[in-house]
Amino acid sequence: MLYRKVIMAIADGSGDRPHPLLNDKTPLEYADTPHLDRLAAEGITGMIDLIGSGIPVGTDMGHMILFGFQPEDYPGRGPIEALGIGMDVEPGDVVLRCNFATINDEGVVLDRRAGRIRDNTAGLADALDGMELIEGIRAYFKPATEHRAVLVLRGPGLSDRISDSDPKAPNDGQPYLPVEALDETPEAKRTAMAVNLFMKKAHAILASHPINRERMAQGHPPANFILTRGAGRMAQLEPIAATMKFRGSCIAAESTVLGVAKLAGFEAITDARLTGSIDTDVELKAKLALEQIARHDIVYVHLKAPDLMGHDNDPLKKALTLELFDRMVGLIAEQLPDDVYLALAADHSTPCEVKEHTGEPVPVVIYGPSIRKDRVTSYNEMDCAYGALGRMSGHEFVRTLHGLMGYVKKQGN
Amino acid sequence: MLYRKVIMAIADGSGDRPHPLLNDKTPLEYADTPHLDRLAAEGITGMIDLIGSGIPVGTDMGHMILFGFQPEDYPGRGPIEALGIGMDVEPGDVVLRCNFATINDEGVVLDRRAGRIRDNTAGLADALDGMELIEGIRAYFKPATEHRAVLVLRGPGLSDRISDSDPKAPNDGQPYLPVEALDETPEAKRTAMAVNLFMKKAHAILASHPINRERMAQGHPPANFILTRGAGRMAQLEPIAATMKFRGSCIAAESTVLGVAKLAGFEAITDARLTGSIDTDVELKAKLALEQIARHDIVYVHLKAPDLMGHDNDPLKKALTLELFDRMVGLIAEQLPDDVYLALAADHSTPCEVKEHTGEPVPVVIYGPSIRKDRVTSYNEMDCAYGALGRMSGHEFVRTLHGLMGYVKKQGN
Repeated sequence: MLYRKVIMAIADGSGDRPHPLLNDKTPLEYADTPHLDRLAAEGITGMIDLIGSGIPVGTDMGHMILFGFQPEDYPGRGPIEALGIGMDVEPGDVVLRCNFATINDEGVVLDRRAGRIRDNTAGLADALDGMELIEGIRAYFKPATEHRAVLVLRGPGLSDRISDSDPKAPNDGQPYLPVEALDETPEAKRTAMAVNLFMKKAHAILASHPINRERMAQGHPPANFILTRGAGRMAQLEPIAATMKFRGSCIAAESTVLGVAKLAGFEAITDARLTGSIDTDVELKAKLALEQIARHDIVYVHLKAPDLMGHDNDPLKKALTLELFDRMVGLIAEQLPDDVYLALAADHSTPCEVKEHTGEPVPVVIYGPSIRKDRVTSYNEMDCAYGALGRMSGHEFVRTLHGLMGYVKKQGN
Repeated sequence: MLYRKVIMAIADGSGDRPHPLLNDKTPLEYADTPHLDRLAAEGITGMIDLIGSGIPVGTDMGHMILFGFQPEDYPGRGPIEALGIGMDVEPGDVVLRCNFATINDEGVVLDRRAGRIRDNTAGLADALDGMELIEGIRAYFKPATEHRAVLVLRGPGLSDRISDSDPKAPNDGQPYLPVEALDETPEAKRTAMAVNLFMKKAHAILASHPINRERMAQGHPPANFILTRGAGRMAQLEPIAATMKFRGSCIAAESTVLGVAKLAGFEAITDARLTGSIDTDVELKAKLALEQIARHDIVYVHLKAPDLMGHDNDPLKKALTLELFDRMVGLIAEQLPDDVYLALAADHSTPCEVKEHTGEPVPVVIYGPSIRKDRVTSYNEMDCAYGALGRMSGHEFVRTLHGLMGYVKKQGN
């Protein structure tokens, strides 16, 4: 067998629709992208539906598929977020998404986000991390972006069939909700008990924590409570890198993408200069991708900015972020080793006019050694619809890459 | 989310094959259809297999798919026919297709269609409607077209595992068959008993009915018996309008299509001027479609005539019916609101040379706001095969429309 490697460059949310501000072109058609177009011209192109035509997917699901999972493998947002911020998650763990919040002595939520606290959440989280709860259940707690955090419960017999404590009221002033079992199993009951105990203990610790005393001294609401929501139980899921028996790496800024990478058994590489926005360092991304491919079989390099501009309904700026993507891809292509395919993809469309993910397909390219070239010469939603890959699911596209790499098992003999 | 609407115009059985009488063009290629071609030129096109390549579908199944159901949701012809003629059908009901027939005193079928009776079947049916049978089972009975009628059995513990009473002999002169249970369940046995009782009671009532006395006075065979066939049990089936949480409406003449519309939870609009044939009023159809879309999220408008001409092996007349379709679509397109997509579709191919439905794919178009235009400029089986939608299943096509409307749930987060 001839084994080869793949670098996949992902422009998050890059699929779009024709827009009047862009002379009725899509951002990909409008942007000046000589490198993307060269890869399309010298490679094979097509369109992919991440799950199926018309079905919108989240960034987590879209990347699950691009990394090689099936839609039904989706473990819920919680485990992906936990992995993304560097927590360990083991099969059987129950993961909850949390907010630092401010409550009064009666348990009324005064601020669901503790004044949108940004600073020192790591110090507060440290005080709660590793806490012993009941019957061998232990709580692991880490801060995420801004007022967000993640709680991982680990121990025997846990269930995710429990209610949220976060009242999620549009206005504050509601009491937080005691967590309840959503079914009659002993697992659900003891998990609910464990979360209630965690919240009580956390409140006692946070209320008198020096960081909160200082916040109050400065007139900020204290982050004296942890609201929980969206419990999810981590399933037994074999990492793709183990299934395929290859070494993977992923370069990204966004914790969701890094979380999926870890779920897939890939190394998750990030850097403070990778910002997850339009000011990210694409030269660094290209450099890291080329470094990583020397030591791995497959490397994903992700650019978040196009999706953000779609959500913001800013087609001109979206076109600029695609030129940024073009620069990154150009730098990679320039030094691409002979045995490496370079693939272009996206996790979903985020049309500016919709400001949300939609279910329209996204264009893809595979460029590299001895590839079957088609007649398409531009990378965009219109031209790649005429590509020789045709229209396929995200999973079929990834399998195509794994096949070119030489890692797909022959069926029959 | 950006919500939009859809009008789907369906040319029944419009798919065909090149025909020597049309200079080896298909009826769609041969017909003069400037409006269909403009939509193709300004929209996105493709080919759909209602279920799968090579699989022919009936009008009922084809429309089930176009309305958003899956093939396995098909409840049988009976329930669709019952709904189409305005009967209520509830989950658990057993529906039988019936003929008014003529029998002699020995139960021998003298005429399976009672002299193809057309007049006054409503009067005869009224005398049988609402009859109480055994153990809480009630019979609802309504006439359909010509000698046809529908029997709905409602009550506890019914089964469709019963035999036909209609001998369906190529020639009359056979006795009708007592209905028997096809399995050993008490449900099948009591349903068979109920149908046998219905036939006996119906014979007693019809034999002495004034309408039949008059028929005999005029030398017509009396419609003195009801032959039953094709029992089907109505499954629990959530209407598509409820599943998708949108308001639907359907404009059609054919009861099968109207029945599917009701199954889908759509309003079913018809009018005596909509004839289900080549003399139908397409101006009225267009007017109704535009009226309905103001109050609904999705509107289907159906033209039966092309299918009839396919069954008749009349390619020139089939081309004429497609020009009729073109006129209807043109009138709709002219006044299409800005937030409405206009889609063109068909439920199956009915090639003239075959005179039956075949499994060849049919062309589709989606035209409307910010659509990704492709390079196809004509609406027909050859050009749309080069469309950017590619080739997809009927279900994928409908999901594409639901996605553009903003009604498909995002997977993942």
